Amino acid sequence: MDTISENKCFGGTQGVYSHASAATGGTMTFGLFLPEEAANGPVPVLIYLSGLTCTHENAMTKSGAQAFAAEQGIALVFPDTSPRGDGVADTDGFDMGLAASFYVDATQDPWKPHYQMETYITRDLMQALADFPLDMDRVSITGHSMGGHGALTLALKHPDMFRSVSAFSPICHPTASDWGQRQFEGYLGSDKSVWADHDATLLMRSNGYDKPVLVDQGTADQFYDKLNTGDFAAACADARADAQIRLQSGYDHSYFFIASFIADHVDFHAQALYA
Amino acid sequence: MDTISENKCFGGTQGVYSHASAATGGTMTFGLFLPEEAANGPVPVLIYLSGLTCTHENAMTKSGAQAFAAEQGIALVFPDTSPRGDGVADTDGFDMGLAASFYVDATQDPWKPHYQMETYITRDLMQALADFPLDMDRVSITGHSMGGHGALTLALKHPDMFRSVSAFSPICHPTASDWGQRQFEGYLGSDKSVWADHDATLLMRSNGYDKPVLVDQGTADQFYDKLNTGDFAAACADARADAQIRLQSGYDHSYFFIASFIADHVDFHAQALYA
Repeated sequence: MDTISENKCFGGTQGVYSHASAATGGTMTFGLFLPEEAANGPVPVLIYLSGLTCTHENAMTKSGAQAFAAEQGIALVFPDTSPRGDGVADTDGFDMGLAASFYVDATQDPWKPHYQMETYITRDLMQALADFPLDMDRVSITGHSMGGHGALTLALKHPDMFRSVSAFSPICHPTASDWGQRQFEGYLGSDKSVWADHDATLLMRSNGYDKPVLVDQGTADQFYDKLNTGDFAAACADARADAQIRLQSGYDHSYFFIASFIADHVDFHAQALYA
Repeated sequence: MDTISENKCFGGTQGVYSHASAATGGTMTFGLFLPEEAANGPVPVLIYLSGLTCTHENAMTKSGAQAFAAEQGIALVFPDTSPRGDGVADTDGFDMGLAASFYVDATQDPWKPHYQMETYITRDLMQALADFPLDMDRVSITGHSMGGHGALTLALKHPDMFRSVSAFSPICHPTASDWGQRQFEGYLGSDKSVWADHDATLLMRSNGYDKPVLVDQGTADQFYDKLNTGDFAAACADARADAQIRLQSGYDHSYFFIASFIADHVDFHAQALYA
């Protein structure tokens, strides 16, 4: 584990660290906010998965989450959005390749060698976090846009790993969206039955979910039609999930939206993490 | 206006009153909670529509709403659920006829003479309330089950009358439900295009709604499959409504569910009423 930076922040520490990942076959970077309470023993953890074009840094600097995590005594983890470095495949577009992993384990070339982000998040990152004063039995997950898709799908696929899940503006039904179909074809191949395992709406319909779910979606989101919030809302209702779907009038897809509601999300997760 | 009873309650007054209604062609009874602030001038109003089998009394005695209305300085109105009295048609069943008006204006016999509940609520009751220190420019509406259907449909049909709408366990899509199809056929006739005007999901899809919406639905509701929460949630998302749909894990259809979340609903409406 290498320390890239550490800054005092709301009485705790905002750090950036890098470590080797067997899954992605390279070095991965993440942000970690440790609240003041971590000096006295392990604290619960909220993982925040970012969206397209982001690195570990965007939410760390723009969401304002640390203020509320400090109040609740919760650590925040900001992973990167894809593998990086020499030999890592990419496209010219912003929505596939670097910073656009969709948090899946790719089975197709040229992505397969490094784009193993589901295993990275659920195994290698979790192992790396064990070096810090974190209570890895109390972990929840959130995210934005592609990262909201990541949070929802990883929580639904790994129901024992996370105590609660929330998302801002998530891609809710990628197998029915421009944000999903092309990427899943590239990363996962043309067999659409495989895609269903990475689609929050389909996972909710097939498996259900028994932990708390919170989704916030701005009604002025410029990408509204790619996100399919209604499909996920209907799936939650049909599955009788413990879910809140909130349409926030006039908000768009930006970090100003996230910052406006991050307090609610941290408090929502705190309730599950301290239950 | 006749005063049936008045009791001091949370510093204000819980009254029960009756008045003649031209719409229903008889005497209608309602409960009215006036907070302490009403002594000093008009206060905002939250109307609560009750469900099948109820009178004006159930929510007045079992919801616990007065505590929170008193905190917010808001009046509560508890209308009856159907016309009553000699000559008012009924069936043997609990879900059609007395206490089961579905808040529509019936066009079919034997219902047509008295079952004019939409006009009663939106005209005659409103006029009767003008006798009290109420700010009739600041009115919101809520309800439970059939009353949740009433609240949602009246708000969506009369968007300028109510500043916000909420519902507990509402019948969301009556044209697709056992709770709706038979009643609409009886009250409104067999032309299903007429039914659409009394279906919250269809109204949201056709007209949208630009005021705040809050729905709470228990996942252990014994009538879950009649309520179609997911259809309304999807319609809200597609209409980009300012809507929160909350699935409350383990709660059923009872007043214990309502009592558990009535504070949230009163606070939600207070925000719109005082905006």
